[in-house]
Amino acid sequence: MKEKPQIEDVKKAKEQIKGYIHRTPVMTSQTLNKMTGRKLFFKCENFQKTSSFKIRGATNAVLSLSQTEASRGVATHSSGNHAAALAQAARWRNIPAYVVMPNTAPQVKQAAVAGYGAQITFCEPTLAAREAGLREVIACTGATEIHPYDDYRVIAGQGTAALELLENNPDLDTVLTPVGGGGLLSGTAIVATAMLPHIQVIGVEPQAADDAYRSLQAGHRIEAGPTNTVADGLRTSLGYKTFPIIQHLVSEIITVSEEEIVQAMRFVWERMKIIIEASSAVPVAALLSGRLHTSRRRVGVILSGGNVDLKQLPWM
Amino acid sequence: MKEKPQIEDVKKAKEQIKGYIHRTPVMTSQTLNKMTGRKLFFKCENFQKTSSFKIRGATNAVLSLSQTEASRGVATHSSGNHAAALAQAARWRNIPAYVVMPNTAPQVKQAAVAGYGAQITFCEPTLAAREAGLREVIACTGATEIHPYDDYRVIAGQGTAALELLENNPDLDTVLTPVGGGGLLSGTAIVATAMLPHIQVIGVEPQAADDAYRSLQAGHRIEAGPTNTVADGLRTSLGYKTFPIIQHLVSEIITVSEEEIVQAMRFVWERMKIIIEASSAVPVAALLSGRLHTSRRRVGVILSGGNVDLKQLPWM
Repeated sequence: MKEKPQIEDVKKAKEQIKGYIHRTPVMTSQTLNKMTGRKLFFKCENFQKTSSFKIRGATNAVLSLSQTEASRGVATHSSGNHAAALAQAARWRNIPAYVVMPNTAPQVKQAAVAGYGAQITFCEPTLAAREAGLREVIACTGATEIHPYDDYRVIAGQGTAALELLENNPDLDTVLTPVGGGGLLSGTAIVATAMLPHIQVIGVEPQAADDAYRSLQAGHRIEAGPTNTVADGLRTSLGYKTFPIIQHLVSEIITVSEEEIVQAMRFVWERMKIIIEASSAVPVAALLSGRLHTSRRRVGVILSGGNVDLKQLPWM
Repeated sequence: MKEKPQIEDVKKAKEQIKGYIHRTPVMTSQTLNKMTGRKLFFKCENFQKTSSFKIRGATNAVLSLSQTEASRGVATHSSGNHAAALAQAARWRNIPAYVVMPNTAPQVKQAAVAGYGAQITFCEPTLAAREAGLREVIACTGATEIHPYDDYRVIAGQGTAALELLENNPDLDTVLTPVGGGGLLSGTAIVATAMLPHIQVIGVEPQAADDAYRSLQAGHRIEAGPTNTVADGLRTSLGYKTFPIIQHLVSEIITVSEEEIVQAMRFVWERMKIIIEASSAVPVAALLSGRLHTSRRRVGVILSGGNVDLKQLPWM
């Protein structure tokens, strides 16, 4: 896919991946509706295969490869949900997945990615070492890199979550997603603005990694500095492909504090009885902290994933 | 209700409470199906109002009271899910709820019950003190005692969870529930055996509180000794009303170890991304430990509740 995806590309992605992924449920919570004075609709990607929306984009990208490309495998450098998703998608197509991972990655993440059948190469925990490691793996294997967000096939795949949400709830006036690299946000914006011209798509990110907020303010892409936000899925910077889509289609970026993220995460666990990871709690934090304009009444929220180390909870 | 409930009583209970409670979803898990070699259907009472099935029986009992009885309020001694459920049901009917609670009850439980509007009386942490405290409250207020399980209105109400489950999944061959006092198990057995004569209803309890197992073996009701099982909702003994129903209609009682319960609880959190309390993990433990006869292929499991202190997880 050489050009910016349109809603037709997201619809094609949906057809392409539908035999593999879950159509996740949309949950509601009377408690949260009452507290926020709105009607909220939570798209539960924590219940998705590999426990995050990342499987949508990874599967769409893997299934889009030609037979020749695919036979040499796919590769990425990541220690998070994209690596697990890519490994699972590659296994479905019965091709190798190569993952370059910092040697400091937590044991649980290594085990998860290995569990989906990926071949892991360890490197020093710097971006330069990760990129060099990936180049080397690709040189040796001829594998195709599948970037976690700066790839139009991935963006189109991520958009399928919002497509399902808006098929279920065509009367939303707002959709909130977390924003890290911007794959989920840009895919969501493509779908939502095409289906409902008056809808607002809003990205929410940690104050501690507010590169999307600053990029939109500045009118050009600004890199996130090093950050330790608890929302570990959102530490990356917007991509070269995701930034212009977001700049064009997203209404606003809201930022939230670390404390607000942890409180929102715990609140969802306690009241909704579902397990979401900190990155998923970021848009919920925007709602609970009153940062969303009161005119937004029917709000969809994409709960992006549920991968959490149950021995290391951020409120303990 | 003077006589043992029949399925018609459960159907009436369902009509009576339906404007108040949730019809909870039935979840499936391909991972758990694969691991156990069965098709499993989880009735998610952790998503229920007050986060447990107890609201079904409490609401049915409260709504069954005459106006005169109701006006004097309802009372119970409990520190757990029944107390919260009774408080919520009383609030819906706009009548007082009196809860006698041991002064050792965890702060989170006190706060939960108070949060639903109950008037709490503290007592020493012995059964004798709790019963004396309850008698005194009733003498002062004229409130009606609503027992957590040894009450036919409560039993009929608890049966509504299985009624919904079997309406959704009429092809089950087995239903598993945890068993403590036996309200959920007896209500489930009344419904399931009336709807599907060949179904087996099986209760699962901690080895550390195996009074139901021993009672069925002995042919008469045996009290549970003092126990500290992690499944804190299952420390009670079968009731005088629940025992004969269970003796008549339940196929088998399976027991599981403390370690199996904690592992099953963690497994559900990690793989299904939902929060269940230890008592709910007890039937899952029977499945994961291979204690259920292999001929049982399509198994319904009632996940009884999701009230957990998120600062004190049993695997930490």
